[in-house]
Amino acid sequence: METVVIALGGNAVLQPGQRGTFEEQLANAAVAARAIRYILEDGYRVIVTHGNGPQVGNILLQNEEAKAIVPPLPLDACGAESQGLLGYMLVRSLLSELRTHGVEREVVALVSMTVVSPDDPAFQNPTKPIGPFYAKPRAMQLMAERGYQMREDSGRGWRRVVASPEPLEIVGATTIRRLVEAGVVVIASGGGGIPVVRTSDGAIAGVEAVIDKDLAAHRLAEVVDADVLLILTDVQAAALNYGTPAQKDLVGRVPYAKMLQYHREGHFGAGSMGPKVEAALRFVGSASGRKARRAVIASLNVAREALRGEAGTCIVADEV
Amino acid sequence: METVVIALGGNAVLQPGQRGTFEEQLANAAVAARAIRYILEDGYRVIVTHGNGPQVGNILLQNEEAKAIVPPLPLDACGAESQGLLGYMLVRSLLSELRTHGVEREVVALVSMTVVSPDDPAFQNPTKPIGPFYAKPRAMQLMAERGYQMREDSGRGWRRVVASPEPLEIVGATTIRRLVEAGVVVIASGGGGIPVVRTSDGAIAGVEAVIDKDLAAHRLAEVVDADVLLILTDVQAAALNYGTPAQKDLVGRVPYAKMLQYHREGHFGAGSMGPKVEAALRFVGSASGRKARRAVIASLNVAREALRGEAGTCIVADEV
Repeated sequence: METVVIALGGNAVLQPGQRGTFEEQLANAAVAARAIRYILEDGYRVIVTHGNGPQVGNILLQNEEAKAIVPPLPLDACGAESQGLLGYMLVRSLLSELRTHGVEREVVALVSMTVVSPDDPAFQNPTKPIGPFYAKPRAMQLMAERGYQMREDSGRGWRRVVASPEPLEIVGATTIRRLVEAGVVVIASGGGGIPVVRTSDGAIAGVEAVIDKDLAAHRLAEVVDADVLLILTDVQAAALNYGTPAQKDLVGRVPYAKMLQYHREGHFGAGSMGPKVEAALRFVGSASGRKARRAVIASLNVAREALRGEAGTCIVADEV
Repeated sequence: METVVIALGGNAVLQPGQRGTFEEQLANAAVAARAIRYILEDGYRVIVTHGNGPQVGNILLQNEEAKAIVPPLPLDACGAESQGLLGYMLVRSLLSELRTHGVEREVVALVSMTVVSPDDPAFQNPTKPIGPFYAKPRAMQLMAERGYQMREDSGRGWRRVVASPEPLEIVGATTIRRLVEAGVVVIASGGGGIPVVRTSDGAIAGVEAVIDKDLAAHRLAEVVDADVLLILTDVQAAALNYGTPAQKDLVGRVPYAKMLQYHREGHFGAGSMGPKVEAALRFVGSASGRKARRAVIASLNVAREALRGEAGTCIVADEV
């Protein structure tokens, strides 16, 4: 039985243009749940991870609006709240989808942390914008009071930027492996995982950062020694010359070396497809040789077909 | 090796009078983590559950304050967020406490639901106040717009009341049992669990209610066939004639029949000690006979001593 790590895009549960009511989010979660059921029915062991951008954005807004009466929580704690919310929606939707279709599987969502290095160079150069836009005076105040780094964002106002360090270790890896081996569908490392560092005495401390969820999905895939990393997004495939008249979707099998070449040529945008391709390459590239690994980048609505090799971009090891 | 379910009081992580900064909550979580380490060092398997009243109260306030820009989430979703927050604080604190003292144990927090009956009589008579106090005009508006039931609360304003139905089933019970048997410290059913109902087709739907965390702790103790239910609170023991000059703390062993008699005589307040005693009696009373169960009600700061029988109220099966 093959093991697949499914990485759901940040927009899978709260889509651009939606207000973000709970009903809207649940309806989207139900669509994701259906895709996951198809994959379970095809005989895979499944681990799910997901983005949390829209949800943590809302939580940050709520913290800001209520700051006079409720002490705002730091970013790591807001990320933890978003894992609770998304974990609930996904477990509930997936259990509902499975039970109403006669599929008996356990499903569980874990609150999960990802260890980063305090010496990660990303901390010297925070680039990831998060949370609400602020007028300049409030931005100046936040920089002074809370030590935030903030940047003016293309005329829309000031926005906080945080570091996006490399995920090094999934906390609770042994438990995740144990559950997956027992056939449990595990939802973990939501939003890339809550970013933490290990202190010299072995304690764990939170850091205000954001971990790329696709790179964390790769770590998760290593933890369970997955066969497939399936990265689901809102485009049909990775593409060359994306957004230009010369755009060419990479549908079907692409050998590792070829994809690495495209990646180095800068075909995949830093904020969008780039991290997905990077995660896919890391996963296929680190294969031990004793198993054939593949990474698939595809649209959520063709997840099952993509896993069958009928849609999306499928990055495979080079022929030897 | 005995298995103990530890129920942390709602005030264990955010104490009355505190503002509720993350630092305050983490410091409190560290105190709870120390108590749990002592119990692990004494050789128990441990499952932890916890209240979430102060945290979900803050989340509800934040939802209300930001309602013009972020659609407010229903109570079940807010409870899920509080599980994420508390799960993070407790796992992080406990792993830190264990690692810095050379104790190797896995610790994991689950986002967890508790099934209730849609026909529970509690839904006909909501009694549990939750969230912020409102002025009368806003209360009237909320009743009209969202169908809330609200009551005037002793001159302090209007407050929403919700049902507190009986916990019937812990969703994910098999997984919890599996993890506990493997020696993993599991944190589950926070805030009594996110309340859900099963629909006739097998789907799961959320309900806006609050489940008593001590009664849910009893269900959790049945799931793992625990030996001890340890209910930690901020008083030293259950007491007769509590708060009167005739108050008598019940320190030491109290047989089941005797405790049941006190309970029926109305010694334990409906909102505070009553549910704890009820949960303790259910746990000891449902013992199958093949094992001796005990339920202990004690203060967090003497948790280890209470488990050793040196503090708190210890309810034991009647001599036969």
